[in-house]
Amino acid sequence: MADSESIENLDRCDPLAPLRGEFALRDGLIYLDGNSLGPPPRTAAQRIARMVDVEWKDGLITSWLAADWSSSPRRVGDKIAPLIGAAPGEVIAADSTSINLFKCMAAALSLRPGRRAILSEAGNFPTDLYMMQGLENFTDGRIAARIVAADQVLESLDDDVAAVVLTQVHYKSASIRDLAAVTRRVHDAGALMIWDLSHSAGSIPVDLNAAGADFATGCGYKFLNGGPGAPAFMFVAARHQGQSQAVLSGWFGHRDPFAFTDDYQPAADIQRFLCGTPTVLGLIALECGVEVFHQTDMQALRRKAQRLGRLFIDLMSERCSGYGFDLASPDDDELRGGHVSFRHPHGYEIMQALKANDVIGDFRAPDILRFGVTPLYLRYMDISNAVDIIHDTMAKSLWDRDAYRIRTGFT
Amino acid sequence: MADSESIENLDRCDPLAPLRGEFALRDGLIYLDGNSLGPPPRTAAQRIARMVDVEWKDGLITSWLAADWSSSPRRVGDKIAPLIGAAPGEVIAADSTSINLFKCMAAALSLRPGRRAILSEAGNFPTDLYMMQGLENFTDGRIAARIVAADQVLESLDDDVAAVVLTQVHYKSASIRDLAAVTRRVHDAGALMIWDLSHSAGSIPVDLNAAGADFATGCGYKFLNGGPGAPAFMFVAARHQGQSQAVLSGWFGHRDPFAFTDDYQPAADIQRFLCGTPTVLGLIALECGVEVFHQTDMQALRRKAQRLGRLFIDLMSERCSGYGFDLASPDDDELRGGHVSFRHPHGYEIMQALKANDVIGDFRAPDILRFGVTPLYLRYMDISNAVDIIHDTMAKSLWDRDAYRIRTGFT
Repeated sequence: MADSESIENLDRCDPLAPLRGEFALRDGLIYLDGNSLGPPPRTAAQRIARMVDVEWKDGLITSWLAADWSSSPRRVGDKIAPLIGAAPGEVIAADSTSINLFKCMAAALSLRPGRRAILSEAGNFPTDLYMMQGLENFTDGRIAARIVAADQVLESLDDDVAAVVLTQVHYKSASIRDLAAVTRRVHDAGALMIWDLSHSAGSIPVDLNAAGADFATGCGYKFLNGGPGAPAFMFVAARHQGQSQAVLSGWFGHRDPFAFTDDYQPAADIQRFLCGTPTVLGLIALECGVEVFHQTDMQALRRKAQRLGRLFIDLMSERCSGYGFDLASPDDDELRGGHVSFRHPHGYEIMQALKANDVIGDFRAPDILRFGVTPLYLRYMDISNAVDIIHDTMAKSLWDRDAYRIRTGFT
Repeated sequence: MADSESIENLDRCDPLAPLRGEFALRDGLIYLDGNSLGPPPRTAAQRIARMVDVEWKDGLITSWLAADWSSSPRRVGDKIAPLIGAAPGEVIAADSTSINLFKCMAAALSLRPGRRAILSEAGNFPTDLYMMQGLENFTDGRIAARIVAADQVLESLDDDVAAVVLTQVHYKSASIRDLAAVTRRVHDAGALMIWDLSHSAGSIPVDLNAAGADFATGCGYKFLNGGPGAPAFMFVAARHQGQSQAVLSGWFGHRDPFAFTDDYQPAADIQRFLCGTPTVLGLIALECGVEVFHQTDMQALRRKAQRLGRLFIDLMSERCSGYGFDLASPDDDELRGGHVSFRHPHGYEIMQALKANDVIGDFRAPDILRFGVTPLYLRYMDISNAVDIIHDTMAKSLWDRDAYRIRTGFT
């Protein structure tokens, strides 16, 4: 099907090819894990060095204003906003996805007094479920964490559900939920919708406001390329900002933090969902990552990502059939997000062997090999070369069957 | 009293003088605000560059293990531990002071079922009070944020108080609370003690375990020199770790985060108080700051800080009397922490003028000028020169009385 010449041609004709130059990538590496940790944007090293050597060293505390450190959660949030269909002033970059989810849940509960359940699906990314369980435990069950099978979520909506927490693109399968349709169903039941966009933001076009979404959070270090443990983002629809409660009501969410009053008075806008002092180093790295997206648009990125994913699936079927890989992602390009997953009973060992050969994907227990197909810096030829290396790894048994047997007792 | 020669002599005989070389400081600057934001440790720029260029770029996701990113909250916490009288495994570096305080309060409440109040003092650093109020609001008052006058705290202890939140060194006055005595009184009343060490850690010797303290949190970007918005730290006494509840129960606090199970099972130890993915860039900068302390000890630092503070107060009294400055810190060197504060009705304008003359302190509404006397990098001559510049600023009216009148209506 896809010969080497036709694949080279795809790269030659790729309008996004120049964007690869925006990233610092090690020669020879085929990086298929941008869905877990994106590589450094080219500008990051220099921007961070300036932050340390000029803003921190020379400016010291004056840089909170002079270098716009104070406004960085909103500034970076405003740069993320167009990637997720949010308006300026609806997004902040701060804290972690887990903590932002907690803020979202508390805010949603404050808008639905009397309703006492948060609903989500089994198999959701664990931290979402864990944060719900923490809330349930902390409130001695007054708030219920209701976790049901994925296909039972909408049927489980009732008058007690204050909010639904779902991840738009599943972290294992990459299957995409219909943002608008789900949000509508949730609203019809009188509940609010909290989207986890960790595997969507920077990967697929997202239009929160068109869908009427209420709250969202997502990760800064995956497709947004913000660096390990980058600040996450939080979206609060403008209509909810003045009404909903900030449970983590730290001083940066105060109307006037530097008045140093004893009484908490929340800022009127998105600012109230800030908590502690902004983590400037992390925000600056994240900003470098987000700025790359402003050179293109999510539709163009999505088109290329779909083609990369299609090519991966087709080449795996062409070159690696008979080695026991089962596609664990939707085959339909419209329903699959920014990575392609395969099941294999020896997935862990195979991924170790691939890493040793400079093909980096990741493994998700118990048997999923995940390969990110990130269009900002991947070439079609990278996909082809990766599949060749997967083939060679399997054909030559470069992965260690014996180690597997010893470790697990299985054969 | 203190002539130039004798002050130079103090610097010549200062055993800590070489430590100034551990920091990147701009020539000519007299930095008296290390209590708000410490300057960059000399090693930070290079260490951060290595993190970006090698660990992030070359190692990518493999650096979570290969470069010890995963363990950085505990590793940095263990390096902070000896500065605050904690044992290895009792401290993590993560999140913000505000968020860690929330975790501490929730954990304390879980250890004191039936008790429903958190007690603190009016005038405490606002974020502590705001976080308490957020908790009260979120629980519809089931948990009460009881905020009383500073001298009424111990008298307000009763059977409903689950925990007391106090800051050891006051952010405005620098007055020091007796950690051991207060903890004892709180324990006598059956409550738990949560210390905010934001202005203590790295400034005065702290011995949490000798005092039997239960929980603590504090700031990474002040005396620990961890950079703007550095991760904060959290201390949980070993005896409480297995019992107390983690309300912000994110995936990094799970017993086995990479098992990706639906059910939250807390780690048995301090790890359970982690929440989201660690913010590696910030942790690495903080680590550089904390490592400087391992070249000396808190007793030596404290002695020099006391002398710097004494010199400041004496020189202000000698050279700046009659300009309307009132000491707002304890005059007793034993009762004063790492900064010296003065009240002045035109404090804001005076501090602006000082900053323009490369003497950086800060202003805290309504009328406090704060000057940090941080012994790691300040010379006695810096204090003398700063007081000279304060004198000149007042004598020559370099601060703008007219701007003040126009802005405030006062004269």
